[in-house]
Amino acid sequence: MSFVGTPDPNSGWLSDEELAETRRRLPLLYVEAVPVRVDGVGQVTEVGILLRANSAGSITRTLVSGRVMYGESLREALFRHLEKDLGPMAFPLLPASPIPFLVAEYFPFPGSQFTDDRQHAVSLAYVVPVTGTCDPRQDALELTWMSPQEAASDLISAEMEGGRGALVRAALASVGRLY
Amino acid sequence: MSFVGTPDPNSGWLSDEELAETRRRLPLLYVEAVPVRVDGVGQVTEVGILLRANSAGSITRTLVSGRVMYGESLREALFRHLEKDLGPMAFPLLPASPIPFLVAEYFPFPGSQFTDDRQHAVSLAYVVPVTGTCDPRQDALELTWMSPQEAASDLISAEMEGGRGALVRAALASVGRLY
Amino acid sequence: MSFVGTPDPNSGWLSDEELAETRRRLPLLYVEAVPVRVDGVGQVTEVGILLRANSAGSITRTLVSGRVMYGESLREALFRHLEKDLGPMAFPLLPASPIPFLVAEYFPFPGSQFTDDRQHAVSLAYVVPVTGTCDPRQDALELTWMSPQEAASDLISAEMEGGRGALVRAALASVGRLY
Amino acid sequence: MSFVGTPDPNSGWLSDEELAETRRRLPLLYVEAVPVRVDGVGQVTEVGILLRANSAGSITRTLVSGRVMYGESLREALFRHLEKDLGPMAFPLLPASPIPFLVAEYFPFPGSQFTDDRQHAVSLAYVVPVTGTCDPRQDALELTWMSPQEAASDLISAEMEGGRGALVRAALASVGRLY
Repeated sequence: MSFVGTPDPNSGWLSDEELAETRRRLPLLYVEAVPVRVDGVGQVTEVGILLRANSAGSITRTLVSGRVMYGESLREALFRHLEKDLGPMAFPLLPASPIPFLVAEYFPFPGSQFTDDRQHAVSLAYVVPVTGTCDPRQDALELTWMSPQEAASDLISAEMEGGRGALVRAALASVGRLY
Repeated sequence: MSFVGTPDPNSGWLSDEELAETRRRLPLLYVEAVPVRVDGVGQVTEVGILLRANSAGSITRTLVSGRVMYGESLREALFRHLEKDLGPMAFPLLPASPIPFLVAEYFPFPGSQFTDDRQHAVSLAYVVPVTGTCDPRQDALELTWMSPQEAASDLISAEMEGGRGALVRAALASVGRLY
Repeated sequence: MSFVGTPDPNSGWLSDEELAETRRRLPLLYVEAVPVRVDGVGQVTEVGILLRANSAGSITRTLVSGRVMYGESLREALFRHLEKDLGPMAFPLLPASPIPFLVAEYFPFPGSQFTDDRQHAVSLAYVVPVTGTCDPRQDALELTWMSPQEAASDLISAEMEGGRGALVRAALASVGRLY
Repeated sequence: MSFVGTPDPNSGWLSDEELAETRRRLPLLYVEAVPVRVDGVGQVTEVGILLRANSAGSITRTLVSGRVMYGESLREALFRHLEKDLGPMAFPLLPASPIPFLVAEYFPFPGSQFTDDRQHAVSLAYVVPVTGTCDPRQDALELTWMSPQEAASDLISAEMEGGRGALVRAALASVGRLY
């Protein structure tokens, strides 16, 4: 696919104004990945959490995530966002199954479990083992690897954007590593 | 929620023109349900398939499905479409888990597993036991109950809209009833 | 099935000595249930935890669980243990899918996530909505209903037998109710 | 673990007579794997089916499977049986999640979906991508790679031992590759 002459590819075939308008009208579809390291028998040993400066300039923790574009499969979207956020040498192993471990529903309303000021987004979340070297790009400052226990801690949870602490815990539960 | 003064609620806060435009730009989020009857220990005994006249006037088989609207949770959308397609006395038992048994990706391109001429739609699919009486409404002519074997047959599969035969088979596999 | 003239049915076709011997030689297969209350759209609102006097005479919290007997299906075993632990009027709704939300591996060794002094047991765990009145029998003193937040708390987790606090948290994660 | 001075490790700490006796008394716990090849975005492209001479001397098709031994984790058992059946250079990528795509219940009775003349066995089944070279050992004659469509065909299903054709179809459904 070539993006020559089209608007910003990150806005997925919509101009910024159109995207802003759509965000007030429709739930947007996202994919989200919890990067992990696994041992020789597939057991998760570490979880990768991104450190990111958000639009307000403060530092928060988050996961790999992004929008699914028109005509793009979920796998393609997941791969594209992993490459964007972790760099081209991360060598992620996408799961054979397209069934997410959780469907996270983000609402721009207070009181919902997952929140996103900008929009109503529905995110299909996957655990993705990465086997290479991560080199966060764009606005991500760093990828921090931590133990399952630390990733599930109240401290890390509190620092995560939009309620994603619960997403990390659900990811760990799905791989038998939540205590 | 009141729809007084808003456009057709089925177009979810978008006018028909806006919806048509959006369909060329973004993947739309759907929920889909395979209605089933279960016995006393939860085993699926029958599968409900809708008989419907499509826009071209021909008769096809399909499942309960519909769009998720802005601000609506997946559970609310699933419940709304079950009521719309099966009537108010179906008494569906929505699953405790929001994790779908399959995520079906519909593309308006030939060659994809699931197809939809109108749009790129991503559908979260659930098996939903119904305990009451189904009385299909709107454009659905009839709900046909059949055995798991019949529902998974090549004959029924060939009659289903947009490749949904594969969805029925995956539903049966997820409940241990695909042979 | 009749148990007339057979050993204690709870030892499943084995005498107590034979069962004790087998427990040192083979992993035993268990099913486990987390009883829940759900609202009209299937969302979990409460979790049921059993209060039980264990063999050492102290009070602990636990879940519905028990062995799968020879010739018995998983559904039959699950139903039998739900009836044994919650009484005949609990009216559990067994899930249509036989896929557990977690497979808990109990070892008689210190250091494992789930522990059982008596044996190596592998337990298939399910979330089961109950719609009737629970009347715990046998050695269970009481069934306590609590909110998802309370059930997942460190306090309740610490009181649960054999590491089952992690099982409750994984159950809640699987239904989108772990925070 | 050392097996010096113990009975045949494949009988898992039981003599042949003891194992035969146990098989008439208790369900035995198995793990089962459907080996697959995946492409760069994790999509299953091929399924590996074993050709094996069974005890009656006839040729049947089957999957990687075997018993879980006392003290062994599911991951260890899965890895051990993959190595035994596919050789040491198969380099299987065990899934991060211990949740099986299906729990297959084998009974020594006619009329059950999955059958095993020898025993009541409960098998946790996983899809396992293999990245290396498979060199079937022991009594397996050959590993045949085939397309998802061929693996799910009635022809292959009919040749599979104990009803495992349904297991292959459920495996394909779980990875979005059943048509």
